[in-house]
Amino acid sequence: MRAAVVHDGHIVIEQRPVPSPGSHEVLVQIAAAGVNRADLMQRLGFYPAPPGSPADIPGLEFAGTVAELGPEVSAVAVGDRVFGVVGGGAQAQYLCVHETHCAIVPDTLDFITAGGVPEAFVTAHDAMVTQAAVQPNDWVLIHAIGSGVGTTALQLARAFNANVIGTARTAAKLEQCTSLGLAHGIVAPSDDAGRLDVNALNEAVRAIAPNGTDIALDLVGGPYLEAEIACAAQHGRIVLIGTLAGGRTSFDILATMQKFLTIRGTVLRPRNVADKAAATAAFVRDVVPLLAAGAVAPIIESVMPLAEAEQAYDLLGTDTTFGKIVLDCS
Amino acid sequence: MRAAVVHDGHIVIEQRPVPSPGSHEVLVQIAAAGVNRADLMQRLGFYPAPPGSPADIPGLEFAGTVAELGPEVSAVAVGDRVFGVVGGGAQAQYLCVHETHCAIVPDTLDFITAGGVPEAFVTAHDAMVTQAAVQPNDWVLIHAIGSGVGTTALQLARAFNANVIGTARTAAKLEQCTSLGLAHGIVAPSDDAGRLDVNALNEAVRAIAPNGTDIALDLVGGPYLEAEIACAAQHGRIVLIGTLAGGRTSFDILATMQKFLTIRGTVLRPRNVADKAAATAAFVRDVVPLLAAGAVAPIIESVMPLAEAEQAYDLLGTDTTFGKIVLDCS
Repeated sequence: MRAAVVHDGHIVIEQRPVPSPGSHEVLVQIAAAGVNRADLMQRLGFYPAPPGSPADIPGLEFAGTVAELGPEVSAVAVGDRVFGVVGGGAQAQYLCVHETHCAIVPDTLDFITAGGVPEAFVTAHDAMVTQAAVQPNDWVLIHAIGSGVGTTALQLARAFNANVIGTARTAAKLEQCTSLGLAHGIVAPSDDAGRLDVNALNEAVRAIAPNGTDIALDLVGGPYLEAEIACAAQHGRIVLIGTLAGGRTSFDILATMQKFLTIRGTVLRPRNVADKAAATAAFVRDVVPLLAAGAVAPIIESVMPLAEAEQAYDLLGTDTTFGKIVLDCS
Repeated sequence: MRAAVVHDGHIVIEQRPVPSPGSHEVLVQIAAAGVNRADLMQRLGFYPAPPGSPADIPGLEFAGTVAELGPEVSAVAVGDRVFGVVGGGAQAQYLCVHETHCAIVPDTLDFITAGGVPEAFVTAHDAMVTQAAVQPNDWVLIHAIGSGVGTTALQLARAFNANVIGTARTAAKLEQCTSLGLAHGIVAPSDDAGRLDVNALNEAVRAIAPNGTDIALDLVGGPYLEAEIACAAQHGRIVLIGTLAGGRTSFDILATMQKFLTIRGTVLRPRNVADKAAATAAFVRDVVPLLAAGAVAPIIESVMPLAEAEQAYDLLGTDTTFGKIVLDCS
């Protein structure tokens, strides 16, 4: 089979043997696989694949057709259209996946669209629902609202009847989100040093939600966590899922106590089999029906053939995209 | 009635009118009231009483006899021996308390002992059980193990079959905790600047619990939070309940994500009526039976008459005490 392979800081297409499914695994013929920021880190050699995943084939999400079953598989059948998240290996023609990590693709979704769904939707749903227990009328603060997880969280929050405040670095990104129902957008304010102005952001948030935000999804890290604590309402929940702006920041212990805040860190890729199965089951329960009904949908920016994986990574790396880049692996 | 009153940075004893209970309140004739660090802050003027509490009479915990009922009270009766936590006002001869904030004192506890129970036991139980969901065989890291909340958390953790690692600034404090069942004590290591040495503490913890700690109760704040994140096991829970060593610190977002940590801030005093009632109900359910059976008990360092409240505060402020200072208000 053809596979996208990390080689010396680049992605090259190589021939690899088709893998054989383990006892509870299925072999999936991949139709489409989204590109994610973690892939860029893996290309640079900074983010080795977790145990059990192919060491040098990136790809954290897949959509395709079940081609072969391991001997103990009972949850899916040959020919099923499936999609899901994996620890790696999806940017290839075939992939072995644990049966509990496969969700059935709704008939209304084509494979390319389905290939851009799992990573962002499982991440956003896990963060906002499983970790932060979103409630109707909650105020949800989403930074990097124009990112794949950001636009997804926006749609899911609205489907759960929560109110969203989104931030982005440019007004253009916010403008693109208005068609997804973003009513409250803030261009992230900077101080003279170009650093996030926490007080100005808090003032802008309070002008919209005077009592503060019940949930913050932090896809950015660094000083954004300071802003989330400042903006938080009593009993607020903050979910940390990205560190693009830095892995360390100053932390206000006193405010965290006085507001009874809960701050939770989470990451999808290195989860064990049982935890990924639980996240998949929650996705099937809550999100797949919304996808089937068209109430939520991935934003696909660009579709490129697997052979152009390197160019797809480069495009994502420009930070100019809005929505997902999906590789056509057929 | 006589009451301890904050006056210009000091505590003086004044005559005040006996308060009248509201519809769901009871008038308690106070027998004993513990002294807490928050009282010292209130004496200094840094920590105003929460709404609904006497503005200038400190005292966050009481034990006494129900003397009079508000018109709607059904949970307790005149003559009941009760104890509990309040937002202030306990260091006096009488106090009005919401009926849902009163727990019945077990027959096996005298009033002086009971007066040293509520604040530390409700705080420690709420943090370790309600917030951090302690499980049998969990490793629990407790800083300031010799403090009132520390010795209480130690006893409760053992009653819940968890393993405790305690830290203190002196070996003498650790030694005093061995009689309470502390098997693993660490003198908090300092670097050359006298600051907590986070790496050395982590190494000492890992020598005892190689996979790290499941729960940390942070009564200290400042750099201790850094150490708790470094020491945490996967899916660890950290509960922030004190800031003696500082209200800000550097925060490791990446480790919080990669270990799936939950960090929760909490404080007892300003909670609303319903939240205090819930904490009291959990205390009645889990802790009062242990107190009645003698499985846990407050450590009483010293008993002083209400008239000597100022001296009691001064004694607590020396940082040399082990266990509670209780005022005899009879």
